[in-house]
Amino acid sequence: MSPKPQMSIGMNILGFGSHSAAWRMGEVPANAYLDAEYYCNIARISERGTLDAIFLADGPALGGDVAQHPAGRLEPTVLLTAVALATQRIGVIATASTTYNDPFNLARRFSSLDHISGGRAAWNVVTNAGDAAAQNFGLAGAPLHVDRYARADEFIDITLKLWDSWEDDAIIGDAVSGRFADPAKVHTPDFVGKHFSVKGPLNLPRSPQGRTVLVQAGSSEGGKALGSRYADAIFTTQTTLEDGQGFYQEMKHRARQWGRNPAHLKIMPGLSTVIGSTEAEAHARFDRLNDFYGEEGLLYQVAARVGLSVAELDPDAPLPWDRIGPVASFERGSHGFLEAQLNLARRENLSIRQLSRRILVGHRLLVGTPEQVADTLEHWFLAGAADGFNIMPDMFPSGVEIFVDEVVPLLRQRGVFRHEYTGHTLRDHLGLPYPASQYARSA
Amino acid sequence: MSPKPQMSIGMNILGFGSHSAAWRMGEVPANAYLDAEYYCNIARISERGTLDAIFLADGPALGGDVAQHPAGRLEPTVLLTAVALATQRIGVIATASTTYNDPFNLARRFSSLDHISGGRAAWNVVTNAGDAAAQNFGLAGAPLHVDRYARADEFIDITLKLWDSWEDDAIIGDAVSGRFADPAKVHTPDFVGKHFSVKGPLNLPRSPQGRTVLVQAGSSEGGKALGSRYADAIFTTQTTLEDGQGFYQEMKHRARQWGRNPAHLKIMPGLSTVIGSTEAEAHARFDRLNDFYGEEGLLYQVAARVGLSVAELDPDAPLPWDRIGPVASFERGSHGFLEAQLNLARRENLSIRQLSRRILVGHRLLVGTPEQVADTLEHWFLAGAADGFNIMPDMFPSGVEIFVDEVVPLLRQRGVFRHEYTGHTLRDHLGLPYPASQYARSA
Repeated sequence: MSPKPQMSIGMNILGFGSHSAAWRMGEVPANAYLDAEYYCNIARISERGTLDAIFLADGPALGGDVAQHPAGRLEPTVLLTAVALATQRIGVIATASTTYNDPFNLARRFSSLDHISGGRAAWNVVTNAGDAAAQNFGLAGAPLHVDRYARADEFIDITLKLWDSWEDDAIIGDAVSGRFADPAKVHTPDFVGKHFSVKGPLNLPRSPQGRTVLVQAGSSEGGKALGSRYADAIFTTQTTLEDGQGFYQEMKHRARQWGRNPAHLKIMPGLSTVIGSTEAEAHARFDRLNDFYGEEGLLYQVAARVGLSVAELDPDAPLPWDRIGPVASFERGSHGFLEAQLNLARRENLSIRQLSRRILVGHRLLVGTPEQVADTLEHWFLAGAADGFNIMPDMFPSGVEIFVDEVVPLLRQRGVFRHEYTGHTLRDHLGLPYPASQYARSA
Repeated sequence: MSPKPQMSIGMNILGFGSHSAAWRMGEVPANAYLDAEYYCNIARISERGTLDAIFLADGPALGGDVAQHPAGRLEPTVLLTAVALATQRIGVIATASTTYNDPFNLARRFSSLDHISGGRAAWNVVTNAGDAAAQNFGLAGAPLHVDRYARADEFIDITLKLWDSWEDDAIIGDAVSGRFADPAKVHTPDFVGKHFSVKGPLNLPRSPQGRTVLVQAGSSEGGKALGSRYADAIFTTQTTLEDGQGFYQEMKHRARQWGRNPAHLKIMPGLSTVIGSTEAEAHARFDRLNDFYGEEGLLYQVAARVGLSVAELDPDAPLPWDRIGPVASFERGSHGFLEAQLNLARRENLSIRQLSRRILVGHRLLVGTPEQVADTLEHWFLAGAADGFNIMPDMFPSGVEIFVDEVVPLLRQRGVFRHEYTGHTLRDHLGLPYPASQYARSA
């Protein structure tokens, strides 16, 4: 009898939590986000819950309003090296841009992280839509979507070649004879493309996972094409089970079309959580967070997303649909998030005031008990809408503590989540095979 | 009475040691250089000896002959984050290229390392002469020397602006009122230059050292100009006391010409060490290392450096001076190293066989007792040839153990080296002041 399928769970450390008032709750000092120990602590708690990985979003520009919100981020590959040293088994997923990096440097840095972590590294590939990032790299604005994705495709192709450039058994390491490596097993990709020319080989032998795990999160056509072709895991925003099932089917189908085994493409929707022992406690926790914004602040969050001012909105009416342009026309923010929010508002015919309490970072939001969280995770998993989840607690560290101490035991009881780690690498946790080097000759 | 001046000491971890046969001695496994713990161990030993910093050289290309030598390196900013987590006080100096990086990304990564290490980070600025690196970044060969240094100058200028872009007291962090930062203290450099345009600000508040310590090692005119203008410390190859004194005077003079306090530019020559309890033991240790190459291998090292074949050389004669072109015409290797070696051979009228036992990586070599090492360090320090030293042991970990356990106590007895750390940051160790942000208004 084959073992029952198990879900994967990633912990998304979005600053102080996915509620942007989290820093005001005083759980940690206002400069905690600049301290590696803040992240190490969350990672150790997550590891106690045998989660698959922790995840760090990123972008190479100062976003947001520094007057009102903690801004800036430690660079993820560096920060997650610290986290890897503070943990033993949990995976570490760092976001990095294909638009604002060079393949050789980035391939090497992820390979280094994979070596140092003993095979626990993953790269979340992003292309960065915003102009602020572009302006830090000599451009007036972000390159066109199509160009960003063409560059990303080439970037990943090169990166895989560099990671594969040393075969698994290239190192001989015989101190007596003085033979260090077999030069026939160290390959020079000599890549010449439209965006990059990279000779190689990588100046690092192959890392413990062979290739760093690849994660992708784009929901555009370009993003889905790229993700289904190369990614090991897809992070996605899905707000209804039906949408989740549809996306799941689509991505598995796309993977098959690339000649891949669809089981090796893991679909992981996001879930923002506000958890309390009772529903009343959960809502009280959420109210405490929302109260920092007041009515005006909450309405502003909706207004800013749809590109209108608060004064133009009637809080008790639905969104003024005729004044909101097509999602594709928005220059700021995630199109996937905006679309999910607009769909939610339309589907449930929410007033703007109601919507303002349902959106958080843009992912599906659940305010409820550990049982309710476990129910929804189990339901989506068994109903074919997810292979795992990217959990985004409202605030840290209490949000991850509640999840690990109260939700994880329920998932274990129900037989859908591991009781202990069964492998050592992130690939092991995710159930992904070890990838052969593309340069290895079949025996 | 002001305290007696103290020398600074950096430990240069060049793979398995500065003798290229070190990996064959079996002190550590042949893949130890891919394991963070190998470096953490050396750093902890160095910290036991209250050394100022450990240092990692680097280049973004696979150099050397993989058949015969361990090749490739973990990326230094990532690796030194691991080392910082394993230590408390010692500085960590990472080499990175201005020719093959973007200022925004690199400024941010070093700022991250400085935050995570609590103010112990330094950047060793290099421009990378070799073509192999260029070919990993879309170029047929390295840019011209003058262009590399012009780019480096602009790169550093931007980097300092990004590090300064948040003033020291920009963060208010008042969770009660919700005021996170004072926007008037977060500046947008908006740099537009010949090589780069970078808007900023950096997406990280100012780091514990204000600015990461800057190290520079170029001995060309361009390197000396750049180093005297921007660097906090200069790593240099000097093989005689007179040359060392001359270089020291020149760099202090150059610093003064830039309007700097020359005491804030630390001159640190390299010293390769092969240490034994007696001279005989030291030479026996060196012979064991050299024996791995045999006569032919040693001669090859000389031949390769001067661009000739072994067959063209008479081991018992001096170098064929008329067949060796000007140093500036050599495309491979460090011009500083080559010049120092040629000067050594000429000065002492060495045969090629004798020279082959005197060169190692190219820095001054001392094969001798702890007393002899302490003597030379003290002598150079007191004679105005050095503010400190970059120590390059023959092999690890024994080379650093001997240095820390047998040389450091002598230097302490003589009153020229600290008994304990008196500060927490690398700036503290080096005796460098905390730099004000260039954007801070004088009160």
